Amino acid sequence: MVERLRKIGFAKLTSVEDALDLLFSNTKTVNTEEIDTPKALNRIIAEDIESEIDVPGFDKSAMDGYALIAEDTFEASPNNPKFVKKVGKIEIGEASDLSIKRGEAIRISTGAVIPNGGDAVVKIEDTEIEENNIIKIYNPVAPGKNVAKQGEDIHKEEIILKKGTELKAEHIALLSSQGIPKILIRKRPRVSVFATGDELVEIGEPLSKSQIYNSNTPMIANLVRTYGGEIISEATVKDDKSFITEKMLQAIPSSDIVIFTGGTSVGTQDYLPEVVNENANVLTHGVAMRPGEPILIAHKNETLIFCLPGTPVAAYVGFLKFAGPAIRKMMGAKETDPRKELIAEIDKDIPVSRMGYLHYLRVYLEIKEDKIIARSVRLKGSGIITSLTNSDGIIEISKEQEGLKAGEKILVKLLPI
Amino acid sequence: MVERLRKIGFAKLTSVEDALDLLFSNTKTVNTEEIDTPKALNRIIAEDIESEIDVPGFDKSAMDGYALIAEDTFEASPNNPKFVKKVGKIEIGEASDLSIKRGEAIRISTGAVIPNGGDAVVKIEDTEIEENNIIKIYNPVAPGKNVAKQGEDIHKEEIILKKGTELKAEHIALLSSQGIPKILIRKRPRVSVFATGDELVEIGEPLSKSQIYNSNTPMIANLVRTYGGEIISEATVKDDKSFITEKMLQAIPSSDIVIFTGGTSVGTQDYLPEVVNENANVLTHGVAMRPGEPILIAHKNETLIFCLPGTPVAAYVGFLKFAGPAIRKMMGAKETDPRKELIAEIDKDIPVSRMGYLHYLRVYLEIKEDKIIARSVRLKGSGIITSLTNSDGIIEISKEQEGLKAGEKILVKLLPI
Repeated sequence: MVERLRKIGFAKLTSVEDALDLLFSNTKTVNTEEIDTPKALNRIIAEDIESEIDVPGFDKSAMDGYALIAEDTFEASPNNPKFVKKVGKIEIGEASDLSIKRGEAIRISTGAVIPNGGDAVVKIEDTEIEENNIIKIYNPVAPGKNVAKQGEDIHKEEIILKKGTELKAEHIALLSSQGIPKILIRKRPRVSVFATGDELVEIGEPLSKSQIYNSNTPMIANLVRTYGGEIISEATVKDDKSFITEKMLQAIPSSDIVIFTGGTSVGTQDYLPEVVNENANVLTHGVAMRPGEPILIAHKNETLIFCLPGTPVAAYVGFLKFAGPAIRKMMGAKETDPRKELIAEIDKDIPVSRMGYLHYLRVYLEIKEDKIIARSVRLKGSGIITSLTNSDGIIEISKEQEGLKAGEKILVKLLPI
Repeated sequence: MVERLRKIGFAKLTSVEDALDLLFSNTKTVNTEEIDTPKALNRIIAEDIESEIDVPGFDKSAMDGYALIAEDTFEASPNNPKFVKKVGKIEIGEASDLSIKRGEAIRISTGAVIPNGGDAVVKIEDTEIEENNIIKIYNPVAPGKNVAKQGEDIHKEEIILKKGTELKAEHIALLSSQGIPKILIRKRPRVSVFATGDELVEIGEPLSKSQIYNSNTPMIANLVRTYGGEIISEATVKDDKSFITEKMLQAIPSSDIVIFTGGTSVGTQDYLPEVVNENANVLTHGVAMRPGEPILIAHKNETLIFCLPGTPVAAYVGFLKFAGPAIRKMMGAKETDPRKELIAEIDKDIPVSRMGYLHYLRVYLEIKEDKIIARSVRLKGSGIITSLTNSDGIIEISKEQEGLKAGEKILVKLLPI
């Protein structure tokens, strides 16, 4: 069969959608762990979080000024000020039980408790204090003005964060404002990365003609980190069936994901398909996408195995489409594809070389007046890393499309950051 | 003067642009350090990188197939194949000195050296091998087809990365492909963060009425990390002039940046303006932006001091506009504001409360057919953290604008990730 494949290429290609369905239906969630809330940046929360308190916990002032009864300020103006009497002061953090009646006011700081009876705050800039604690009010306020009502932001027992949310600074602030010291998150999936190829030389070694430096493991390892995984093993492997088999069997028991690059197509030294076939369950080999056609996805028990093409751009795209989303799916992330999207106009006609394939087009973006123009990055092959470093994002041209027409609106997925 | 300020508010506000100019002209770059290339994810490179080699380093095959002379394939078709003779084989990584003449072909793998004399590669799927090493060619190739020429991606001595670039997986791949083992990056700016306020209670402590949990230091500390800085100190401080002075003077010598939240406005317990005035050089106090008006920016020698408002959203916006960009400027980043931008349509009229201020509007985004709709997040005050956790991005309404009109195209800056 392998010989046949080598000659005819992939007899049958799986669509990207079907490959993703197959992959996700074989992707298991990793275990949870507890973490201190302030240290949870970029982690995926594993439980819904319910509010334990009203926020604010009490009616509080949103301004520095005077708490009073709004009606006492009605029709106040710079030329015709209203007068109230200052009867006390409430500082931030002070559990005051002061109260006020008509004609009275209490000096209050932003964030302090509104006194009983008070229903609005006049800001300090709109007042002047006279002798005998008489306050002149130069501008009226409506009831509720400059008061943050108890529970107006969050009601007790409301769900404030859904499981699967990736925690950013603002989510950590929200959890902190609730006094929640620890939360349950998903562990980082453990990932092993191997680049196969007799032509690969490690950084720092001398390079002879016919050889290239290994750039795939540093690239994939850093994409794994960007997507939230943890690298537990990283190496280059010669194109030798027994070496590859050994590395794979060693890595599987301790890894949630094993990623190979290179050796997955139909070349004479592409041993990976054989090795994976003999030692794991192949989910798909050959996906209708360009670049990335030779991608192989398999699993052995709960460990996923990805064999990505050796050309860097194809490996990159294959990671973004399959391995990266699998890492996020393992962590229970709501968004398995974390890339941000925008709408742009393509600058010129882009024909595709062959329909039936999903084509990935690298583009850079320019803001021009009130629209964003996407320009295709000039490139020849999928080995050209500068086509990535010069890009802002990637457009997917679906298998039903003959290409793109100049001026067409297209969805751009920004490169992951 | 302080008393006057407390009464009248800010007599004079600085525009956001002027405040940023003042800040940047007082921002010094931090020192450099060397790092192993594969470990440089998200770091800012401190030097231009010149290519040390041609990439590819030799003419190489972009396909598995036969290297040959293109002319020998002209007019080949499935019904009328052309014939060549296989005279050898070149594997990946093999430093072959084989050469070919008209009528000859060499079996070659993707990535292997093109033999002398060969100018194209026919892919294996378009061929069939007969007895006596005769190869049938079913499809023609043009000269250069499936050949990656030496130097076509990168010429030796070309600048491949500019200083100030933030290194992502693809940049690390590019450096690795050049065999560059170490690079010079900027150190992480050292940042101290303090939240001031008598009302603040630490996570895990019991909360009484009038108190709130401190959410500002966890939020700002994680924003600092997101922007590339390193937290060296983090605490809450009571509203007490001598405590605040002590914390500030302790922090300055070991910090590149000191950030306070709270106590920076004109309230009776807002001691920060006094403390900073007495111990450092104030660059600006009071910025024409909402939220965020009471922002104070100062420096003491090379240490920058930011006093952000205590309400979380104002602190967040103040960080995004000033403290965050200062961290990136210290690292020599090309982009001091790392947020991604897109163009959307605002869903409805948004009036602004007062012209002359830059207004920050939090929005969430929806993709609707071929455009993105920005919807304003409903909110009351700037203390409401859920207005951030429910947002995708922020719109800036300039001080000259009266507001936004429904359907207007607007630039949205996505929240930092």
